[in-house]
Amino acid sequence: MANYTTLEIVQENPNSAVFYLYLNRPSHRNALSRDFFTEFPRALSSLDQNSDVNVIVLSGAGNHFCAGIDLKTLTSISDQFVSGDRGRAGEKFRREIKELQEAITAIERCRKPVVASIHGACIGGGVDIVTACDIRYCSKDAFFSVKEVDLAITADLGTLQRLPSIVGYGNALELALTGRTFSSSEAKELGLVSRVFGSREELDNGVRVVAEGIGLKSPLAVRGTKAVLQRSRELNVEQGLDYVATWNSAMLLSDDLSEAVSAYAQKRKPIFAKL
Amino acid sequence: MANYTTLEIVQENPNSAVFYLYLNRPSHRNALSRDFFTEFPRALSSLDQNSDVNVIVLSGAGNHFCAGIDLKTLTSISDQFVSGDRGRAGEKFRREIKELQEAITAIERCRKPVVASIHGACIGGGVDIVTACDIRYCSKDAFFSVKEVDLAITADLGTLQRLPSIVGYGNALELALTGRTFSSSEAKELGLVSRVFGSREELDNGVRVVAEGIGLKSPLAVRGTKAVLQRSRELNVEQGLDYVATWNSAMLLSDDLSEAVSAYAQKRKPIFAKL
Amino acid sequence: MANYTTLEIVQENPNSAVFYLYLNRPSHRNALSRDFFTEFPRALSSLDQNSDVNVIVLSGAGNHFCAGIDLKTLTSISDQFVSGDRGRAGEKFRREIKELQEAITAIERCRKPVVASIHGACIGGGVDIVTACDIRYCSKDAFFSVKEVDLAITADLGTLQRLPSIVGYGNALELALTGRTFSSSEAKELGLVSRVFGSREELDNGVRVVAEGIGLKSPLAVRGTKAVLQRSRELNVEQGLDYVATWNSAMLLSDDLSEAVSAYAQKRKPIFAKL
Amino acid sequence: MANYTTLEIVQENPNSAVFYLYLNRPSHRNALSRDFFTEFPRALSSLDQNSDVNVIVLSGAGNHFCAGIDLKTLTSISDQFVSGDRGRAGEKFRREIKELQEAITAIERCRKPVVASIHGACIGGGVDIVTACDIRYCSKDAFFSVKEVDLAITADLGTLQRLPSIVGYGNALELALTGRTFSSSEAKELGLVSRVFGSREELDNGVRVVAEGIGLKSPLAVRGTKAVLQRSRELNVEQGLDYVATWNSAMLLSDDLSEAVSAYAQKRKPIFAKL
Amino acid sequence: MANYTTLEIVQENPNSAVFYLYLNRPSHRNALSRDFFTEFPRALSSLDQNSDVNVIVLSGAGNHFCAGIDLKTLTSISDQFVSGDRGRAGEKFRREIKELQEAITAIERCRKPVVASIHGACIGGGVDIVTACDIRYCSKDAFFSVKEVDLAITADLGTLQRLPSIVGYGNALELALTGRTFSSSEAKELGLVSRVFGSREELDNGVRVVAEGIGLKSPLAVRGTKAVLQRSRELNVEQGLDYVATWNSAMLLSDDLSEAVSAYAQKRKPIFAKL
Amino acid sequence: MANYTTLEIVQENPNSAVFYLYLNRPSHRNALSRDFFTEFPRALSSLDQNSDVNVIVLSGAGNHFCAGIDLKTLTSISDQFVSGDRGRAGEKFRREIKELQEAITAIERCRKPVVASIHGACIGGGVDIVTACDIRYCSKDAFFSVKEVDLAITADLGTLQRLPSIVGYGNALELALTGRTFSSSEAKELGLVSRVFGSREELDNGVRVVAEGIGLKSPLAVRGTKAVLQRSRELNVEQGLDYVATWNSAMLLSDDLSEAVSAYAQKRKPIFAKL
Repeated sequence: MANYTTLEIVQENPNSAVFYLYLNRPSHRNALSRDFFTEFPRALSSLDQNSDVNVIVLSGAGNHFCAGIDLKTLTSISDQFVSGDRGRAGEKFRREIKELQEAITAIERCRKPVVASIHGACIGGGVDIVTACDIRYCSKDAFFSVKEVDLAITADLGTLQRLPSIVGYGNALELALTGRTFSSSEAKELGLVSRVFGSREELDNGVRVVAEGIGLKSPLAVRGTKAVLQRSRELNVEQGLDYVATWNSAMLLSDDLSEAVSAYAQKRKPIFAKL
Repeated sequence: MANYTTLEIVQENPNSAVFYLYLNRPSHRNALSRDFFTEFPRALSSLDQNSDVNVIVLSGAGNHFCAGIDLKTLTSISDQFVSGDRGRAGEKFRREIKELQEAITAIERCRKPVVASIHGACIGGGVDIVTACDIRYCSKDAFFSVKEVDLAITADLGTLQRLPSIVGYGNALELALTGRTFSSSEAKELGLVSRVFGSREELDNGVRVVAEGIGLKSPLAVRGTKAVLQRSRELNVEQGLDYVATWNSAMLLSDDLSEAVSAYAQKRKPIFAKL
Repeated sequence: MANYTTLEIVQENPNSAVFYLYLNRPSHRNALSRDFFTEFPRALSSLDQNSDVNVIVLSGAGNHFCAGIDLKTLTSISDQFVSGDRGRAGEKFRREIKELQEAITAIERCRKPVVASIHGACIGGGVDIVTACDIRYCSKDAFFSVKEVDLAITADLGTLQRLPSIVGYGNALELALTGRTFSSSEAKELGLVSRVFGSREELDNGVRVVAEGIGLKSPLAVRGTKAVLQRSRELNVEQGLDYVATWNSAMLLSDDLSEAVSAYAQKRKPIFAKL
Repeated sequence: MANYTTLEIVQENPNSAVFYLYLNRPSHRNALSRDFFTEFPRALSSLDQNSDVNVIVLSGAGNHFCAGIDLKTLTSISDQFVSGDRGRAGEKFRREIKELQEAITAIERCRKPVVASIHGACIGGGVDIVTACDIRYCSKDAFFSVKEVDLAITADLGTLQRLPSIVGYGNALELALTGRTFSSSEAKELGLVSRVFGSREELDNGVRVVAEGIGLKSPLAVRGTKAVLQRSRELNVEQGLDYVATWNSAMLLSDDLSEAVSAYAQKRKPIFAKL
Repeated sequence: MANYTTLEIVQENPNSAVFYLYLNRPSHRNALSRDFFTEFPRALSSLDQNSDVNVIVLSGAGNHFCAGIDLKTLTSISDQFVSGDRGRAGEKFRREIKELQEAITAIERCRKPVVASIHGACIGGGVDIVTACDIRYCSKDAFFSVKEVDLAITADLGTLQRLPSIVGYGNALELALTGRTFSSSEAKELGLVSRVFGSREELDNGVRVVAEGIGLKSPLAVRGTKAVLQRSRELNVEQGLDYVATWNSAMLLSDDLSEAVSAYAQKRKPIFAKL
Repeated sequence: MANYTTLEIVQENPNSAVFYLYLNRPSHRNALSRDFFTEFPRALSSLDQNSDVNVIVLSGAGNHFCAGIDLKTLTSISDQFVSGDRGRAGEKFRREIKELQEAITAIERCRKPVVASIHGACIGGGVDIVTACDIRYCSKDAFFSVKEVDLAITADLGTLQRLPSIVGYGNALELALTGRTFSSSEAKELGLVSRVFGSREELDNGVRVVAEGIGLKSPLAVRGTKAVLQRSRELNVEQGLDYVATWNSAMLLSDDLSEAVSAYAQKRKPIFAKL
């Protein structure tokens, strides 16, 4: 596997289809550096193409998930665009922002489910990342903040686009305008995480169980579910129904369906081929 | 009333505008057979056209609401499309899926509110059905699962299109990717049901009270509310406001409004004509 | 400041950027008269243009937030359109509804955040108003109802368009079809309000703290956050990301960013210029 | 074949996959009666389900294509809704209009291409019909008018929705606001018809050649082309590309492709199975 | 009537419902000054509210329709925003652009049809104006150019949004990227104007005939046609059909319809009341 | 510059900002091989990043622009997906199609205008390519065909998504369903090309003049025009206006604007810096 300076990829168990992707700058509370934005989409793309991988768990090394964008990174980026022709600087800065956005959107482009396993701080850019994930679990000690407004920034890496469909438009507005910190239990209430575990250990175990469970399901159905839900988010109901009917006219009648039906009849666990 | 093999229509009280529609294959936990998909839209259409009906309660006969699509049905459908020219089979299979979808969408096409009264299992196709209903209540013993992924299927009867707007996109993804069973109380927390009753009896009574209450309201306003909410779901706010203004320029100034205002002034219950 | 018959604008503290806008017909439980619909957008526009104002708190004078549209207003409006040519009356009535709608939408057009501080009744038109606000808090005694259906009316001032994105489509349907009253704690559970305070006093204090907090943040970032969230509500994720990237290419590199970064480094509170 | 009072279905050549559907009230210049709106969708549905049919030619019996809605029909429809409760009448009238619209939309719902062969008058409702067709040819004597405005009606059977995408939004506005008559050659210039033939005979021959040509093509590819173009009309480019990729993942790899490629290599005409 | 420095309103014939609105700075080839952007929406609003007006003809005083934005105006506007905090300047400049846009969009907000009568130069801002009009005619001497690119500006007053739906996306791109001048006859070919008249006099006469013709039609149907076409431009076909059905359930059954049908039966011209 | 087997990049004049990109398999009439789909996006990306390039001219080496997809490529692609599990094959084939689509969409992703210079055959995949270009010119000998239907294929590389907005939905349907060949002059009439030149030489000269002209304009304004038109294609007018206002709040106030205004005042040609 490739070497990354800001990330680490771990396959805990060689027989498992679950791979772990760690934000790996623990001394900086995994703050997002410029390198991260280059490495992260590359890592996700390699996992997407690796047919041994069915599920990706995204977690933070050390005591926190992610403290948000590195202030030095922010300063050094903004320094590049403050001088010179304002129009040209604007055009280049816009492209830079879009490149950073693409790094986060890589989570959605990855066909395989990405499970965010969150502990400690999940701040600013950390929220941008987890809102792009497919499933979010956290430990009790996790805390969250849509912090950008306190840096005088309109959040531009995805939170304003993705958070409302997760926690509701009203809650998203309140969190983004106040920038207030909220706890794991409020995150659960809001629907930002699906479950809170009592400790980091319980989180790790709980995530493993869920991830391994998904890893054993039909990869065709799992990817179909992610793809169709994602596309349907922007279609109306009629269009979404038509889309999934078209999708399934190609994908439903598979070996996986036969295997699932046979296994069900034989009261055994189905075993699905790689995809 | 017409005869159905998979359904039963009951008017409990001849003076009431509330009609009950039962999924009626209790020996199969009301699993959805191919016949169901033909009969269900027919039943809803007849209730929609019947001016005695103001509200429809959808419930399951026996111990469960619905165990999802009948495996035999699934197998027999898929068998039709596995052989022969792949392109042609795909085209026919797509039409078959769209026909099954139409059966569920019949709930939304019905101008009158459909209240789902859920007890016991509500699995797979059962979730497709209830997410298309206008109101959802359940008893404490109810349990739910977006089960399709475990049959190696990308759910294609509406759950992936309708569930996100009900429980949020994040929760919908988690439920659809894990296929896990969740309880009535979690369904309440998620917003999938509006209320949980302590027992089936309490559910029946509670649903009756709500349904009768709606049945006594202005049928014009009730249908307008359903229609406008449904359409606004796919319009932006500006378009939705324009739509309801146009709607009300035709429908607001009615005998029902006069009656409602008079009744309010006279501190009596209003009585509205059939529609 | 201008004089209003249905409203009052109060700046509690001359050094504060928080202004209070009161619905001010306490003897009528702040029921919405025809005058209100003329004065409200005018008041919001004046606050929007006043560079001393960073945050607006919307509250009700007396014991209630708002009892909904004044029945006399409703009757006098509808009386204008019941006679004469039905087509022409329809056209004029449609324009009248759109004008009333515009009065509520003025909350969204105002670039500055509007915080609804709700106590007592918040009924019908009151719900239309608060769903257009950016943040909603209430006291324990607050109660809510999407009441229009009981007046034989399809709600047409915004609730059907805005409530679903706040509380979910399923909850919105249930509330609008039943017209039932719900408590402050259910409002919290549903996500309609972000927080419930134990008493009116606690509400006032709590709202003040939040509003003053936002009032001290970068006005550029606060307005950007409101504007981008609002626009992204109707765009898909890709379009919304492109929009905020374009926005920030103009607005991010500001004195406010420098000040925020400096203040952070110097561990002091940032001070931002007016906008 | 079923009997129709306002239509006639003709298969000119028993070996051909081209069927002719005639508007058949020549004594009334094929003006659209209430019966037409019931029979037309029925006829199209039967042709859609008939696997002998690959292409439908829609034409008018007698000297004209269609003189628009029958004034008697219009009067008798409107008479039903002018009295009684205005709100209720509005609700029923809206449903009636939607039913009439559905009759025209049946052309788009039909999976097989519908070629409009237009001669003489094509007025009002006639334009609604042809704008829903897939291909439009006319003879030199044809003339057109979006006539509704002269009956004090906002056209509501599809012209205002479909004409702009065919002739451009500007041209559509001019034609609809003036209601002016325009000739076959202007129709060609505007893009409303693809070709003008010198006489009715030449039209008949020309349409036959085109229709027979399409009738010999792969029915899978022809239906795919109609379906994908229709759906893409309401999607953005990215969504449309994704849709057709999904479509072709099910439908492209067919016997028809093999046959087309073989025939091409062997320099012979391909022969495709029925669908 | 109000006084304008950049416009003139003329009612040529006191019995006519056609009013003329002139761009009236002939010495500057009607170049658009900052005042124009304030006066233009005010003028259109007054015409919209004046029940004597059914149709508005927009024309240019002197030898040209409009030479585009006044360079002095452009310079003085941009001078306001080049200094000071870049973020704040950007925010204010964005609002300024939106205000200028609103002035042009006033043409679409006006419920009554606006007919552009174009002669001589129609450059830059002139094209922004005419693309927002409902009907466009020109004289032979008219010439056009989407000129903004030559001032190093991305056109921002509406041409890029409205031209593609009028002349096609491909033509719009070519015209906007080259900024080339095109003649009246090419404008006709492209669909930008509906008709070219041989001289200014013929244009005046021709426009008068068309405008008077529309002025005698049912104002209800004319406004409905404009409103429905405008709204349908942004809805898909299904949504647009539903919208017009809802519209007509309020507006179709009018005195105008009765009058139109009677007049038709009696072979006389219908006479419609003001709206 | 990189080496390509299917393409050639030529800078005719070292002082010019116009670069020529040739489809370069003249012996195969520039039929699209699998390699093309890899090289084409790579070439466009390199031109996009090269600050010496302002405009790209896309042309075909030899006697034809492009004969469409290479039949061998088609066969070898489809052979990969006909065997094995139908569901898995479908999933992989869908990704393959999307990759081919991405190669064409690279034209739209390139920020700089791409001018298609078309001579000889422009068939099938050739039409997919030119509909993604920003400007299209052709010589008299050019001929076109949306040929896919004759290979039993629903066109899936962009024609069905992009052609309707260029030539109108009606014309696109007719061309795609008949697959008929049409001439350069019909292409002009339909709006597919903006101009027809008498010969290949005249085409080359004409394209050079236009491309050099654009190459001398403000690169900021040219890219803004392309970007805003492209984005506005999928937004409604209100959203598009807001987008361009936001865009210009960042990009309008530039050195290019000052230079353009100065040059205009000084009656000289402006000179713009690279971007």
